Amino acid sequence: MKKTLAELAEHVHGMVVGDGEIAITAVAGLDEAREGEITFLANPKYRPKLRQTKASAVIVPPNIDLPGLNLLKVPNPYLAFARVLTLFSQKYHPPVGIHETCHVGEDVTIGKQCAIDANVSIGNNVRIGERTVVYSGVVIGDHVTIGSDVVLYPNVSLLQDVSLGNRVIIHSGTVVGSDGFGFAPVDGSYYKIPQIGTIVIDDDVEIGANVAIDRATLGETHIHKGVKIDNLVQIAHNVVIGEHSVVVSQVGISGSTRVGKHVTLAGQVGLVGHIQIGDSVVIGAQSGVTKSVPEKSVLSGSPAVEQRAWKKSQIALQKLPETLKTLRAMEQRIRELEEQVRALVGSDAESRD
Amino acid sequence: MKKTLAELAEHVHGMVVGDGEIAITAVAGLDEAREGEITFLANPKYRPKLRQTKASAVIVPPNIDLPGLNLLKVPNPYLAFARVLTLFSQKYHPPVGIHETCHVGEDVTIGKQCAIDANVSIGNNVRIGERTVVYSGVVIGDHVTIGSDVVLYPNVSLLQDVSLGNRVIIHSGTVVGSDGFGFAPVDGSYYKIPQIGTIVIDDDVEIGANVAIDRATLGETHIHKGVKIDNLVQIAHNVVIGEHSVVVSQVGISGSTRVGKHVTLAGQVGLVGHIQIGDSVVIGAQSGVTKSVPEKSVLSGSPAVEQRAWKKSQIALQKLPETLKTLRAMEQRIRELEEQVRALVGSDAESRD
Amino acid sequence: MKKTLAELAEHVHGMVVGDGEIAITAVAGLDEAREGEITFLANPKYRPKLRQTKASAVIVPPNIDLPGLNLLKVPNPYLAFARVLTLFSQKYHPPVGIHETCHVGEDVTIGKQCAIDANVSIGNNVRIGERTVVYSGVVIGDHVTIGSDVVLYPNVSLLQDVSLGNRVIIHSGTVVGSDGFGFAPVDGSYYKIPQIGTIVIDDDVEIGANVAIDRATLGETHIHKGVKIDNLVQIAHNVVIGEHSVVVSQVGISGSTRVGKHVTLAGQVGLVGHIQIGDSVVIGAQSGVTKSVPEKSVLSGSPAVEQRAWKKSQIALQKLPETLKTLRAMEQRIRELEEQVRALVGSDAESRD
Repeated sequence: MKKTLAELAEHVHGMVVGDGEIAITAVAGLDEAREGEITFLANPKYRPKLRQTKASAVIVPPNIDLPGLNLLKVPNPYLAFARVLTLFSQKYHPPVGIHETCHVGEDVTIGKQCAIDANVSIGNNVRIGERTVVYSGVVIGDHVTIGSDVVLYPNVSLLQDVSLGNRVIIHSGTVVGSDGFGFAPVDGSYYKIPQIGTIVIDDDVEIGANVAIDRATLGETHIHKGVKIDNLVQIAHNVVIGEHSVVVSQVGISGSTRVGKHVTLAGQVGLVGHIQIGDSVVIGAQSGVTKSVPEKSVLSGSPAVEQRAWKKSQIALQKLPETLKTLRAMEQRIRELEEQVRALVGSDAESRD
Repeated sequence: MKKTLAELAEHVHGMVVGDGEIAITAVAGLDEAREGEITFLANPKYRPKLRQTKASAVIVPPNIDLPGLNLLKVPNPYLAFARVLTLFSQKYHPPVGIHETCHVGEDVTIGKQCAIDANVSIGNNVRIGERTVVYSGVVIGDHVTIGSDVVLYPNVSLLQDVSLGNRVIIHSGTVVGSDGFGFAPVDGSYYKIPQIGTIVIDDDVEIGANVAIDRATLGETHIHKGVKIDNLVQIAHNVVIGEHSVVVSQVGISGSTRVGKHVTLAGQVGLVGHIQIGDSVVIGAQSGVTKSVPEKSVLSGSPAVEQRAWKKSQIALQKLPETLKTLRAMEQRIRELEEQVRALVGSDAESRD
Repeated sequence: MKKTLAELAEHVHGMVVGDGEIAITAVAGLDEAREGEITFLANPKYRPKLRQTKASAVIVPPNIDLPGLNLLKVPNPYLAFARVLTLFSQKYHPPVGIHETCHVGEDVTIGKQCAIDANVSIGNNVRIGERTVVYSGVVIGDHVTIGSDVVLYPNVSLLQDVSLGNRVIIHSGTVVGSDGFGFAPVDGSYYKIPQIGTIVIDDDVEIGANVAIDRATLGETHIHKGVKIDNLVQIAHNVVIGEHSVVVSQVGISGSTRVGKHVTLAGQVGLVGHIQIGDSVVIGAQSGVTKSVPEKSVLSGSPAVEQRAWKKSQIALQKLPETLKTLRAMEQRIRELEEQVRALVGSDAESRD
């Protein structure tokens, strides 16, 4: 693939400063870019690096100027970079068609231009939209519905009854539809509560590798439109995640918890069950949330509290050993004061006798 | 499936108050239940919701009465709900038989009424009991023994020599028998210690999705009867977990640690290696346990301490920034007292001259 | 397999004290070893157990003597144990050859003596070295390069373009090459940043079960020679891990972070993105590292600080509720002193009148 800088500018609605006719064949990082490649500057702190770059062009915000460099000016360089990268990127998706080694059950509908690779298993009563790509080793259970333009990477497991919207991407090893973790205690052991609910995953959701999403006990576990889930995340039964929320790697969300829209859960966060996380909440990495959280809150810590308060108490905690020494010294000073005052009181009484 | 309320009452050894002849066709949550469905009230705090329910019947504890509603009274409503749900639940397990796309090794014995789905790989010298269900993509290594009424969900990996009891359930993506993480340091690099032990999983154990259980270095990793393990849990080599213990999602148990019976490890807990966790211990979410724990202890925190002490120190920690201010004020007051007392002592001495 | 103690001594460059002609057929732990087996003593605290052992021989450090026991003396008993265990250990690897149920793409080169088991999928333009073992259910994407003497356990997924060195071991369920987690925010939703980089895994790396390693956005994610990674670890895009570092279970490393050589990250540690961890750093379990760390540091806590300081502040934290009581008592004592001093000052002034 080869594009002129002017063509790329048109693609991202940007403005060229420099040579618009220069040919671009690839995208690279600021440090690695070579002749023929385009790079980008999103973070102003890396601006000094521009002087050393060997890139043929740089995507920059409008306020950057650097004579001698071909610039592509856009309001949002990171987004423009992503759009240019999409132009140049290439996945070797399996070829269109159903590979002869696949097992396909009864009453299965597969739309036009789908690519179903080797050793895929598809159950009965399955519906798949158009242009969907299913890699090797994927297992699709009975009564599963999958939209169009979906990509299921190798060894994904979709269990019975689950439903995926359009443009959903699921990375390798991820499980959608394992049983929720529910048991009724009885006489010192546990009786399994059947998990007969399902999972609904809306359009434009992306789910990382080796994630586990449990089906609902009754009703549905629901991941709303545009949610992005990183690797190794645990989502328990009957959880709901609102539109365009971001769930970073190794987060665990316990049963029946409802996460709002535009929420960010940073890495390794844990949420207890049966709570509500309001819209636009941000939870810091490794935090443990034990109560419902109002919208727009920013929390950290385990147990999680308002982030500013958490930072102050962490700073205070670092000083605590020193503080205890001060405290012991203060106690000694009080003791001495008490002795001196006792003496003074005695002397005063005496002098008044 | 359709049952009368009286039939359900007989099934769970309960008592009908209201119309025993009413037909029930499904189970649903308190909020979602419609006509023809049965729901349940286990937690008294949801009692006010009973007035709005559209359910045809409600499973309740004996002390609940609500004229106009058909009630099924039982001592343990949650268990009765689970039992009724089991009656109505339906898994579309693969059909009995061995699918033609499976690979089955030499000297393999598969009991009556087993269902082995498409693209399953079974090694040599494998024994499988009766009525066991193996979903697509499962890989069973050499010399593996599997009991009766076991369910292995898609893409489970059982490595060589491991042994599963009866009624074991393993969810998708889980690995039983990866090598323990053992290396001998030598000249700045590591020499792999072969992991030649095995794993024994007893009857009625359930294991979630994308769990990893390592084989022993020597001897065995052992999960005792009735243990329930949630998704994404790590169990290292030579770990032993006692009967009817519960291990919640994303817990990590390090090598050679022994967990007692009826223990609860909440989400994201970490246990160091070579320690003993006594029977009936409860460890709070995200705790890090660094020492052996006597039976019936309740611990929280990282490092974990007795839960009440942990709660007190967490509350104190929240107050710490304010406390430091008080402390600085107290120091100032002591300084002032010292000055005043010094003056008084001087004055007293003077007056005695 | 049967070896005399003298043969084993030659194999590990050790010295026999006792009967070198005794036959050894297996290796076992100190408590479990029976006649015909060899065991080892690496930790001197278990020395009293030697009196009860039924083992036919014991691997010990040079300073241990115990008349009546056959000893194999070596400077590093743990390493010698590992070497003897390697002699006696046995994996039932699949037989050499390509199983007829495999799917092999176009332009694939597979070296001599490889064993490719049932239901393996290999894409196009793949290179595999000699004596490499690929278990069932493994999926290998297009343009993947794999060295010699590699072992890929069941249901591993290697996505397009990734590259593995020689003697790499990857346990079941692990994903190498999922997309990095990168999105550009735009109008309240997210635009996917294509992840077109790759992953390079050098010689002698071992990776546990159900690990996720993301491909780079641009460039490469790089795991250097001899690194050992435990189960359920998350490694984000563009991460670099230096030679012979150890990453324990459930660690999460965020994007673009560079980990040095000989580093140890204990269980459940989290590292934020874009930081540098110096060589020979040790991070304690469950720590959260938020800043770059100089070489040889030992850190703990979340946020992580120097381990000694962390231990002190944790001890101080345990005492904090008691400290607050002391503080309140001190305040009372100061108040009393202030009253007494006020009285004394008044009296003193009076007496001077």
